[in-house]
Amino acid sequence: MYQASYLKHFTEEVFLAIGCRPEEARLAAEVLVSADLRGVDSHGIARLAGYVRLYDHGRLNPTPNIKVVHETPSTAVVDGDKGLGLVVAPRAMEIAMEKAEKVGSGWVSVRNSNHFGIAGYHAMLALQKEMIGMTMTNAAPLVTPTFSLEKLLGTNPIAVAVPALNEPPFVADFASTAVAYGKFEILQRKGLPAPLGWAQDAKGEDTTDSNAVKSGGGLLPLGSDREHGSHKGYGLGAIVDIFSGVLSGANFGPWVPPFATAGFMSAQEGVGLGTGHFLGAMRIDGFRPADEFKKDMDKWIGAFRGAKAVKGKRVLIPGDPEREIEAVRSVEGIELLEPVVLSLSELAKRFGISFESNL
Amino acid sequence: MYQASYLKHFTEEVFLAIGCRPEEARLAAEVLVSADLRGVDSHGIARLAGYVRLYDHGRLNPTPNIKVVHETPSTAVVDGDKGLGLVVAPRAMEIAMEKAEKVGSGWVSVRNSNHFGIAGYHAMLALQKEMIGMTMTNAAPLVTPTFSLEKLLGTNPIAVAVPALNEPPFVADFASTAVAYGKFEILQRKGLPAPLGWAQDAKGEDTTDSNAVKSGGGLLPLGSDREHGSHKGYGLGAIVDIFSGVLSGANFGPWVPPFATAGFMSAQEGVGLGTGHFLGAMRIDGFRPADEFKKDMDKWIGAFRGAKAVKGKRVLIPGDPEREIEAVRSVEGIELLEPVVLSLSELAKRFGISFESNL
Repeated sequence: MYQASYLKHFTEEVFLAIGCRPEEARLAAEVLVSADLRGVDSHGIARLAGYVRLYDHGRLNPTPNIKVVHETPSTAVVDGDKGLGLVVAPRAMEIAMEKAEKVGSGWVSVRNSNHFGIAGYHAMLALQKEMIGMTMTNAAPLVTPTFSLEKLLGTNPIAVAVPALNEPPFVADFASTAVAYGKFEILQRKGLPAPLGWAQDAKGEDTTDSNAVKSGGGLLPLGSDREHGSHKGYGLGAIVDIFSGVLSGANFGPWVPPFATAGFMSAQEGVGLGTGHFLGAMRIDGFRPADEFKKDMDKWIGAFRGAKAVKGKRVLIPGDPEREIEAVRSVEGIELLEPVVLSLSELAKRFGISFESNL
Repeated sequence: MYQASYLKHFTEEVFLAIGCRPEEARLAAEVLVSADLRGVDSHGIARLAGYVRLYDHGRLNPTPNIKVVHETPSTAVVDGDKGLGLVVAPRAMEIAMEKAEKVGSGWVSVRNSNHFGIAGYHAMLALQKEMIGMTMTNAAPLVTPTFSLEKLLGTNPIAVAVPALNEPPFVADFASTAVAYGKFEILQRKGLPAPLGWAQDAKGEDTTDSNAVKSGGGLLPLGSDREHGSHKGYGLGAIVDIFSGVLSGANFGPWVPPFATAGFMSAQEGVGLGTGHFLGAMRIDGFRPADEFKKDMDKWIGAFRGAKAVKGKRVLIPGDPEREIEAVRSVEGIELLEPVVLSLSELAKRFGISFESNL
C-alpha cells in the first residue's frame, strides 16, 4: 500500500526530472494521482511511464506556453503547446470559469495537448465556484463505430460535475464506449475472455477475445450493437471528438495520436495539433439562485438514492463509487500492481529519485 | 400517402382550433410534421391528439407569454407559460442564438413547457447561422436507472447539429435509453416480444415482454445492463434531466408530468413547473474561422463515411438516415398508420376541419 501523498511526491519528482516547472509538476501529480484515489487505476500513476515516453518521443513540452489563440466573451480556443494535458486542462478550465464569472458561461476548446488524466477532475474544479463543470477529450482511435471495420474514435469520455447543498456533488464521468480499454488489459493479464458486447473482431463480429482490439478488432460504442443503440454511443463519441478536436484545430477521428496504446498503434499523419479537449463552466446563478438550485439537487439525489432497488443492490448517484473509494484510499492507501511498481522503480532509477518498492 | 404540406396544413388548423395564435400554430405544425418527414413517426402527427388532450386537461396554454425570467449575457431561464413545447423551444433557441451572436455562445434552460417534438429540429435551427446547436429535454419517467426498480428518468434525448461545408450537416439526435418507447408500442400492436436488453420487468430482471413498462417494469438506459455500461446511459439521462429540469425550475426526475404515456401513468405532485428543456448555440467562429472548421468537418465526415464496413452495411453519419428518409417522403409523401388516421379523423370531426381519410 502506498499513501497518496507519497505517490504524488514521487510523481512530482518525475515531472520535475523531465524539466517541468515546479508548480506545474505539482499540479500534474495532483491530477494524475487523483485517479488512483478515486479508483480509476487505469488513468493514474500506472500511466506515469507513458507520459515520460511521450517526452522521450519529443511529443511533450515540459515548459509549455499555454495560450488563448482566439476568443469571444464566452468561448475560446487554447493552444496547449504540447504540454501535459494534466496541466493544460486545469488552465483551460480556469479560463472557462473566468468567462463564466463575467458572462454566465465559458467554453474552451483545446488543441495541441496530451492525455489529461481523468475527465472528472477538471469538471470538479467548477464545484468550488458554484458552477456546473463539463469536460470532454478525444483520444486515439480504438473504437469501431456502428457497422465500421475501422477504428475511428477514441473512448472519448465526458464528465459533468454539479454541486448540491447537503448531499455530495453529482459527478458523472464515463467513456462513450461499453467499457474502457483498461478492462481488456486486466482480462489480458489474467488470460480471461471478455463478455460479448464489449469488442468486435477483425470481421466486425461480436467476440469474447480479450485481445481483439490488438488484432484488427475494435472497442464497441456504448450500446454494443445496433439493436441496443450502439449508434447512440457512436453519436456521443462523435460529439466529443468534434467539440474537442474539430472545434479547436487538434487532431480528430482516426488521426488522434496514440498514448497508452502506443504499443500496438501508430499515429497516422496528423490533420491538426495534438490531442483535443473541450471544457465548460456554467454559473448556477446564471440560471437560478444557487441555493434554490442546490436544494433541488438534494431533492433529486434523494429521490434516486432512496429508490427501491434490485435485491442486494442500491441505486447509486454518479460520483458515489469514486467518492466511496476515495474515502477509503485516502486513509488506507493505494495498492499498486506489480508491473506498475516495476515501472515506477525504473523511473526512479533513471532519474535518481528514491522509490520504495514493496515487491 | 399524405403530402407533408397537407399534414402541416391540417395540424395548423387543429392548433388554430384550440386557440393558438396563427404564426404559432404554423410553427408548431412545421415542427411536429418535421418528425414525420424525417422518419421519427413516434414524435410526429401521431401525437397531435396528445397535444389536444393536454389542452383538454388544462395543461396547455394556447396563447403563452413566453419570457426570459433570469439571464446573463450567455445564459437564461425561459418560462414557457404552459405553451406548446413545439413553440417554446424554437423561441428559446432564438434567444440562445441571439446571445451567441453577441458573446459567442448562448445557453437557455426552459421551464413550464410541454413536449417539444423532435430534439433535432431545434438543434438544426443553429445551422442557418453557422452555429453548433444543442438541445435536450426531460420527459415523464419510463426509465429505471441501473439497479433501480423505480422509474426515475424519461427517455431524455439529446441532439447536436454541426454544420459542414460540402457535406450535409452532422445531426445526432438520440434518446439516452437503449430504445425509444415507440419501439415497444410497435411490438405491442403486432403482439411480438422485445429483444433482451430493452426493458426490465417489475422485479428488475431483463425481459422480452413488450408490455413490461406498463406492468411495473421500466425502459433500460443506453448500455442495457451494468456490465455493458447502463450506468453511463443513466448518467447521460441524468445530465439531461438536471440541465433541463433542475437548472430551469421545471419538474425533474420522477416528477416530470406524463405526455404520450398518459394512458398508464399518473403525474406525481410536482416539484417545479411543467417539462424542462435545455438549448444551446455556439458560434463556430467563436472558436475557429468557420470555413476552416467546415472544411475539417467535411474531412471528418469523409473519413467516417468512407470507412470499410461490415459486409452489406455502410458507416452512417449521424443525421444520414433521417435526411435520406426526408428526401423520399418530401416527394412521395408520408404513410400514416390506421390508428393515426382515425385519430386525425376524430380531431377533424370535433373541430369541423376537413380531413381526407384514406382508410
